[in-house]
Amino acid sequence: MRFVKNNQTAVFAIGGLGEIGKNTYGVQFQDELIIIDAGMKFPEDELLGIDYVIPDYSYFEKNADKIKGLFVTHGHEDHIGGIPYLLRQVNVPIYGGKLALGLIRNKLEEHGLLRQAIIHEIKEDDVIKFRKTSVSFFRTTHSIPDSYGVVVKTPAGNIVHTGDFKFDFTPVGEPANLTKMAEIGKEGALCLLSDSTNAEVPHFTMSERRVGDSINDIFRKVDGRIIFATFASNIHRLQQVVDAAVATGRKIAVFGRSMEAAIRIGRELGYIHNPKDTFIDAQQINRLPSNQITILCTGSQGEPMAALSRIANGTHRQIQIQPGDTVVFSSSPIPGNTISVNRTINLLYRAGAEVIHGPLNDIHTSGHGGQEEQKLMLRLMKPKYFMPIHGEYRMQKMHTQLAIDCGIPEENCFIMDNGEVLALTENSAEITGKIPAGTVYIDGSGIGDIGNIVIRDRKILSEEGLVIVVVSIDMEKFSIEAGPDIISRGFVYMRESGDLIYEAQHLIAKHLEKVMERKTSQWSQIKNEISDTLGPFLYEKTKRRPMILPIIMEV
Amino acid sequence: MRFVKNNQTAVFAIGGLGEIGKNTYGVQFQDELIIIDAGMKFPEDELLGIDYVIPDYSYFEKNADKIKGLFVTHGHEDHIGGIPYLLRQVNVPIYGGKLALGLIRNKLEEHGLLRQAIIHEIKEDDVIKFRKTSVSFFRTTHSIPDSYGVVVKTPAGNIVHTGDFKFDFTPVGEPANLTKMAEIGKEGALCLLSDSTNAEVPHFTMSERRVGDSINDIFRKVDGRIIFATFASNIHRLQQVVDAAVATGRKIAVFGRSMEAAIRIGRELGYIHNPKDTFIDAQQINRLPSNQITILCTGSQGEPMAALSRIANGTHRQIQIQPGDTVVFSSSPIPGNTISVNRTINLLYRAGAEVIHGPLNDIHTSGHGGQEEQKLMLRLMKPKYFMPIHGEYRMQKMHTQLAIDCGIPEENCFIMDNGEVLALTENSAEITGKIPAGTVYIDGSGIGDIGNIVIRDRKILSEEGLVIVVVSIDMEKFSIEAGPDIISRGFVYMRESGDLIYEAQHLIAKHLEKVMERKTSQWSQIKNEISDTLGPFLYEKTKRRPMILPIIMEV
Repeated sequence: MRFVKNNQTAVFAIGGLGEIGKNTYGVQFQDELIIIDAGMKFPEDELLGIDYVIPDYSYFEKNADKIKGLFVTHGHEDHIGGIPYLLRQVNVPIYGGKLALGLIRNKLEEHGLLRQAIIHEIKEDDVIKFRKTSVSFFRTTHSIPDSYGVVVKTPAGNIVHTGDFKFDFTPVGEPANLTKMAEIGKEGALCLLSDSTNAEVPHFTMSERRVGDSINDIFRKVDGRIIFATFASNIHRLQQVVDAAVATGRKIAVFGRSMEAAIRIGRELGYIHNPKDTFIDAQQINRLPSNQITILCTGSQGEPMAALSRIANGTHRQIQIQPGDTVVFSSSPIPGNTISVNRTINLLYRAGAEVIHGPLNDIHTSGHGGQEEQKLMLRLMKPKYFMPIHGEYRMQKMHTQLAIDCGIPEENCFIMDNGEVLALTENSAEITGKIPAGTVYIDGSGIGDIGNIVIRDRKILSEEGLVIVVVSIDMEKFSIEAGPDIISRGFVYMRESGDLIYEAQHLIAKHLEKVMERKTSQWSQIKNEISDTLGPFLYEKTKRRPMILPIIMEV
Repeated sequence: MRFVKNNQTAVFAIGGLGEIGKNTYGVQFQDELIIIDAGMKFPEDELLGIDYVIPDYSYFEKNADKIKGLFVTHGHEDHIGGIPYLLRQVNVPIYGGKLALGLIRNKLEEHGLLRQAIIHEIKEDDVIKFRKTSVSFFRTTHSIPDSYGVVVKTPAGNIVHTGDFKFDFTPVGEPANLTKMAEIGKEGALCLLSDSTNAEVPHFTMSERRVGDSINDIFRKVDGRIIFATFASNIHRLQQVVDAAVATGRKIAVFGRSMEAAIRIGRELGYIHNPKDTFIDAQQINRLPSNQITILCTGSQGEPMAALSRIANGTHRQIQIQPGDTVVFSSSPIPGNTISVNRTINLLYRAGAEVIHGPLNDIHTSGHGGQEEQKLMLRLMKPKYFMPIHGEYRMQKMHTQLAIDCGIPEENCFIMDNGEVLALTENSAEITGKIPAGTVYIDGSGIGDIGNIVIRDRKILSEEGLVIVVVSIDMEKFSIEAGPDIISRGFVYMRESGDLIYEAQHLIAKHLEKVMERKTSQWSQIKNEISDTLGPFLYEKTKRRPMILPIIMEV
């Protein structure tokens, strides 16, 4: 890497700094490059029509010969969703825990990439050794089983990456390995990269066990059907639902593609345990009394096409809300989804269901640790240098303050941007350069074929609509052979705007006649003139600025 | 009204039930119709490009001869924003408190409607008498001064409408008139229409006075400039900022159109008090030391064009963030604005400002009462019938439960939809019919010229883009004279998709040749065939379904 000296270890991210999602980190010493996670991000609303956002992998592509492996901390989309796209560019070996690999295999199969992928399952005490560096792991607690932190040993020192974590002392699965973290800290952490997501949350995150108590309460009290919506990847939560259902004599029917996959993979890999006959088919629902039914489904974020949304708006093929149904949102809305979650809740109430949601009911907890947990991690690792990762700038900033409070000198803390390279020796650290770390949009099957121009066009089209002016011109005779015709979409009701369109046509026709007299054949100029004539006219009449698209056909 | 008998009073809404916004209510006895509020609503994201949403006023238009007046409870947009559009259809006399009228006059002036408007200022103890009905008022507390509840006396009984309210026992302005409310209750409330906005909030809403304490704390502690963003209409909040600024020797510069208007109107009408020379011009900012400056601005909701957003992203003409600046968000994000507020906060931090926001700092309180306040209103009014108003269905439902808890029989509670008519006598109430209560979209200067088709088109355009196929055909010779040409917007990068476009052109050309052989001149059929040929081809290649617009020019 041209920004670092021969004795320096480079640490950088191409996604995951100053944002939530597309977490993708790199640790490089000389010709050995370790990648940690390859996530994707769901787009914000203004990225109209974009399905996913991934980082620009060009640095990895150019340095393909140096990459030793991709180490996956856990199986959430924002840590594994980019893998199929990365593999198409560089077929790196993938290392990860059993569940993460199960989810990755499922994903690679969908993309037709499973056969070529090189996959290694890791266990907590494995050490993956390369010539100059090695990678080891420590178990953390998070909202998905098999979550690990990663330690990259380099000649300059140990780089510790926490992955996503909270400290759940009474988890549903295995507890975080505090002992091992303390040992790592004792051995010496040169730089700690730690999860900043909940740096603005002043309390200690509630244990998953308490959510289980609330689920049990609900299952004991409710007489009708229970429709339970949560994140499919939260296997611990799913296990708690299974346990509560079994304890109260209910069967479980599963709806929604990702939920079906999670239950299947969770059971196959031994993460979800249940007595025989716990799960039933959709058809069997109608044969059982209401108090023996649990419907476990996707849609806790109000996603329009998810099972729960279709149940709520009455378009689900198999499930209609009936009086006595209780719907549980075991989730909290991600910012941006609040309105669609609200809408779903209103529809469910209107359809006659009881709805249990919101923080008051203790039916959801975060997978990320609050300030006290972040400080606990800092005290265990006692790093010399600190880099807050995962999270918006404000969270990175707050997390840095916590690090300073825990005794790390301010000048040893680095709030970085994607692409910036931190060059470390055992007693120095500085940002020395920037590698490409742009954003790549995925829409349909296209990777990166949508850029800012396309999105800008979509935005104009969506807010103001489109007016097309078509005219056929005989460029030899300089005469208008047909048109100008005006067609619009998303602008005004054409049927009710006859006068407006007629006037506009007339205006352009008059203008074109003058142009013809000039006997010019500079199409682009004629097009500009059409736009410049029509734009102000339409704005004056409607106060709207639609996209104007002049089309000249030469006949 | 054809749904009600001669001895019945009709109560209905054409906006404000099952939604937040466009509050517009009617109380009618025989030929006397009282309108309460005429609000508008800001559209949700999926109403692409729509500026405002108002109710369908056709019932008022048809019954113009019966309307006695529009009574305005307070000056918020969701209670007065529809007035210019209503007045264009029916020039009803407007009654309201001084501040509300100040804001309404400002609005009518912008719309060129002020001269024709008939405006009456009311005071709390006024009684506006008509032949069969009369209207009186009671003072409430809310996040804007001069907020009133309305009592419509009718021969069937008294209809009480709370407007928006909370019970602030230590308000900045005048307290709620509990005594008068108790008297109204004693005299007898046939039906109570009460504000449901915070029916899911289990606590008593914090007093505005406590917000003042927090503001004072901030002004005392901060050394640099204070940039204070809040809702312009919250005149009490503005007064508290003025007081804190004066107490700490700071001047105030005001930015943002609505903030400037609020300060001007508030001062003119005597709602904002300040020593001479408290307010300064933008130019004077640079002449004062930082610790003597307050910048009061709009943008607390992250609105892209508001002053604070432009300050945050560095495009404000007069204000750049400098080290030592403290930005206060005296607000909480409305659902749907969370992401843009977050973005603004991140930008401000990055620019080097300190940012104070969020519920932990006690720098904002709601204008709506929580459950305990709603129950207090119910206990004071002791209504026979109850109708929860303002708020989504889930809030109406929760509010109804509170009414039941306070002793109102469930069958006397009516969760209604916009348009539904509740017909009341002194001992009966039933929903007897439905009047038009649709939604009218305002985009630019057009009222109601945007309908579902236009919005559907905008949605497709925004998510998948557009592909235009143009071809010039000689309909006598049945020959293609020019084209087919393909133009796209918002679909793919045309420059990088040459092959795709070439293939598509070729496909259509081949198809058109066959069509020409048929010697058909059914354009619409040819157009459909172009779409049917191109659509599946593009989907197969890109997994996108752009809008396809075939244009045939006859030459």
